[in-house]
Amino acid sequence: MVDVAALSAELSGAGPGAVVKRALLEHGTGAAISFSGAEDVLLIELAKQAELPFRVFSLDTGRLHPETYRFFAVVEQHYGIRIEYCLPDGPAVQALVRQKGLFSFFEDGHGECCNLRKVEPLRRQLSTLTAWITGQRRDQSPTRADVPVVQVDPAFTGQGGAPLIKYNPLADVTLDYVWASLQGFDVPTNALHARGMISIGCEPCTRAILPGQHEREGRWWWERPSDKECGLHKR
Amino acid sequence: MVDVAALSAELSGAGPGAVVKRALLEHGTGAAISFSGAEDVLLIELAKQAELPFRVFSLDTGRLHPETYRFFAVVEQHYGIRIEYCLPDGPAVQALVRQKGLFSFFEDGHGECCNLRKVEPLRRQLSTLTAWITGQRRDQSPTRADVPVVQVDPAFTGQGGAPLIKYNPLADVTLDYVWASLQGFDVPTNALHARGMISIGCEPCTRAILPGQHEREGRWWWERPSDKECGLHKR
Amino acid sequence: MVDVAALSAELSGAGPGAVVKRALLEHGTGAAISFSGAEDVLLIELAKQAELPFRVFSLDTGRLHPETYRFFAVVEQHYGIRIEYCLPDGPAVQALVRQKGLFSFFEDGHGECCNLRKVEPLRRQLSTLTAWITGQRRDQSPTRADVPVVQVDPAFTGQGGAPLIKYNPLADVTLDYVWASLQGFDVPTNALHARGMISIGCEPCTRAILPGQHEREGRWWWERPSDKECGLHKR
Amino acid sequence: MVDVAALSAELSGAGPGAVVKRALLEHGTGAAISFSGAEDVLLIELAKQAELPFRVFSLDTGRLHPETYRFFAVVEQHYGIRIEYCLPDGPAVQALVRQKGLFSFFEDGHGECCNLRKVEPLRRQLSTLTAWITGQRRDQSPTRADVPVVQVDPAFTGQGGAPLIKYNPLADVTLDYVWASLQGFDVPTNALHARGMISIGCEPCTRAILPGQHEREGRWWWERPSDKECGLHKR
Repeated sequence: MVDVAALSAELSGAGPGAVVKRALLEHGTGAAISFSGAEDVLLIELAKQAELPFRVFSLDTGRLHPETYRFFAVVEQHYGIRIEYCLPDGPAVQALVRQKGLFSFFEDGHGECCNLRKVEPLRRQLSTLTAWITGQRRDQSPTRADVPVVQVDPAFTGQGGAPLIKYNPLADVTLDYVWASLQGFDVPTNALHARGMISIGCEPCTRAILPGQHEREGRWWWERPSDKECGLHKR
Repeated sequence: MVDVAALSAELSGAGPGAVVKRALLEHGTGAAISFSGAEDVLLIELAKQAELPFRVFSLDTGRLHPETYRFFAVVEQHYGIRIEYCLPDGPAVQALVRQKGLFSFFEDGHGECCNLRKVEPLRRQLSTLTAWITGQRRDQSPTRADVPVVQVDPAFTGQGGAPLIKYNPLADVTLDYVWASLQGFDVPTNALHARGMISIGCEPCTRAILPGQHEREGRWWWERPSDKECGLHKR
Repeated sequence: MVDVAALSAELSGAGPGAVVKRALLEHGTGAAISFSGAEDVLLIELAKQAELPFRVFSLDTGRLHPETYRFFAVVEQHYGIRIEYCLPDGPAVQALVRQKGLFSFFEDGHGECCNLRKVEPLRRQLSTLTAWITGQRRDQSPTRADVPVVQVDPAFTGQGGAPLIKYNPLADVTLDYVWASLQGFDVPTNALHARGMISIGCEPCTRAILPGQHEREGRWWWERPSDKECGLHKR
Repeated sequence: MVDVAALSAELSGAGPGAVVKRALLEHGTGAAISFSGAEDVLLIELAKQAELPFRVFSLDTGRLHPETYRFFAVVEQHYGIRIEYCLPDGPAVQALVRQKGLFSFFEDGHGECCNLRKVEPLRRQLSTLTAWITGQRRDQSPTRADVPVVQVDPAFTGQGGAPLIKYNPLADVTLDYVWASLQGFDVPTNALHARGMISIGCEPCTRAILPGQHEREGRWWWERPSDKECGLHKR
């Protein structure tokens, strides 16, 4: 069993690359990178640089931007990997959209749709792992201001119901740091970033932000900031 | 049991509106309109004009254009209906994309992907019906040159395994006829049509055509014309 | 002096390439191709195939699509030519837009703006020539139904006020013919054609057409068909 | 004659609105706002709030984005004004593009094109004024780090060759301040800002920036930062 307190102390100030490497050393292929199709592609680059085997999964909600699907293919090609796509349960989503239409989230909140299209597929994927590696950063939103570099996942369990370790290697770096790294390492990026988007989720629930706006204003803009989590990263 | 030969004789030269109405009278809510999100929206307009209850279903493959999803919502609103979306089986699609990636159709043909994302969901939907109403036209492609106005479906069965009647009310009208009707009746249309698209399918497998090109050149352009059916309309 | 009647008889049924070649042989660099940035690029291809020196001019109204400016550069590069751009008189246009704004044509017709931005610069350019070569086709619009392959220009005079010969090598071919030729000769085309545009003029006065619409419905759509000429091709 | 030192002391810390108002009071219609079509629309809003007559001019280079032209029209409508567009000299620009093509700035720098399309038209406009009001901010670029709130223009002269006063009401506020003001006052903005653009100039010389990039990286990106002025704001 991983001693999270010790690991946390060890990784204090270690830098994103060291955290990714440590996670892969600790868990091997019991760990997987959660890749949203945005700037968290840096995690894949860092795993590649660690020269250790690594796994990547992505949630294909069925409502992503065409550009994001193409970016997934570019990343698979660039890194010579296969992404483990996680799809929602067809009948459950079908029942929702037949009853409420394809845009019910604008009426009664993104929770119901996110739960079916993101949280449940994630839960299934996580139940096969001992650890996951995410792109969460403290500067992303008020809901993420306390994200630690390593933690026992407060919301999900891993393989066989065991506690799941959650690594957030980017927790204490900034958006600017991530982008400087992406450009320095010449990492391919999602074409949507050149159209004013920073944080990228499902197509209907993502929009470009204006100059001076915080990146999180491009997500679920019709809801309160404190509600802007899809359930993947519960506290 | 419907006498297709008699019906066919009766509907000879009857016009699209009369065919739609006859289908609804014959089958009631055992019939449903198959709506792709393109100019076949005319079928919905004609059903509305028939002043009879009608049902509409659409195949949501998980890879449609954002504009098509928005158009579905516009159509639901405009006609005061709920579309019966038909989603693919999550695990089957997940297995395909994990093994071959998200764009395998460019490598080994659209058949495998269409089968999972379109044909199987259609088969399930048709198995609840006694008849379906499609937007097929003879001028659409060489594969559709013989489409009759009414037929026993040669590929699918209906409720309880019974023969399924297939109505093609637009079989002997032209693309120009359809568009003149849409404008004459002031029917909402998919925004993609104003970006050079005529026939509209999944996003990666649809493209705008150039002046002088046949509409079918915008679909599965890397394959032979005689292969350009997704399996919904087998002969 | 060119005998237009004899030339017309000679070129009857000759085909676009032969007409272009004949014009270049007759007039040398006294002739120039008028290139709008659309499918009339075929004229340049045909001139190239004639293996004779040729000149090209284009009207840069200051309101063209960014894609058209880029296409001009592509054409210059592809054919190793310099296009003779014809710009409007700055003070005259400035006076118009200060008085009526940048979109007055939507209010009181395109005549005033076209006159300053197209007709006057064309007049200046034509006054240096003995002949010009245009992309007019009879199938383009009711206003062009009688276009001859060769004529004395009914509206403009040439060098020193002499009669100006006007060649319309595409007069009796169709849009489909032009596009088949462009593809057959692998000619670069304006990126706007892949976004639903056929006829291309100034950006505010051009729009994509819908399936089944005539190409001319993409130009000055708020005016009557019989008014849809900018003054370049008076009868 | 304006005592710039005294005015500068008076306006120290006064805030953008006060500076705009003071300029209008001092110069009346001898002053004019220079409006680029970007976030400097705030100057127009502040002039409106000052409840004094004011003039606005814009440089129409003939290569602006279609969205910028449309924004000019929106601003004219919203504020009930006519913008004094300043167009370049037709023959001079025509000579340049005939000789070097439409994109020579990518080869030998933006100076030559900017000089013809921006600086000369500006010089003509300024020669009719006693003062101009600009949107320069110190945080925009290294070339603007010392911009004062008010100064004698170091590059241009005004009416009759007299010294020209230059007001920079936004000199010491930030991009975030400007955007918060625009949203607070519900000011219309250029649609390009919702596509990743901050600083907006001519279409070929402007691009969207990536997350983490400075706004000035969207302008003349093939040149050195210290060269990124078009000559309007010489030091």
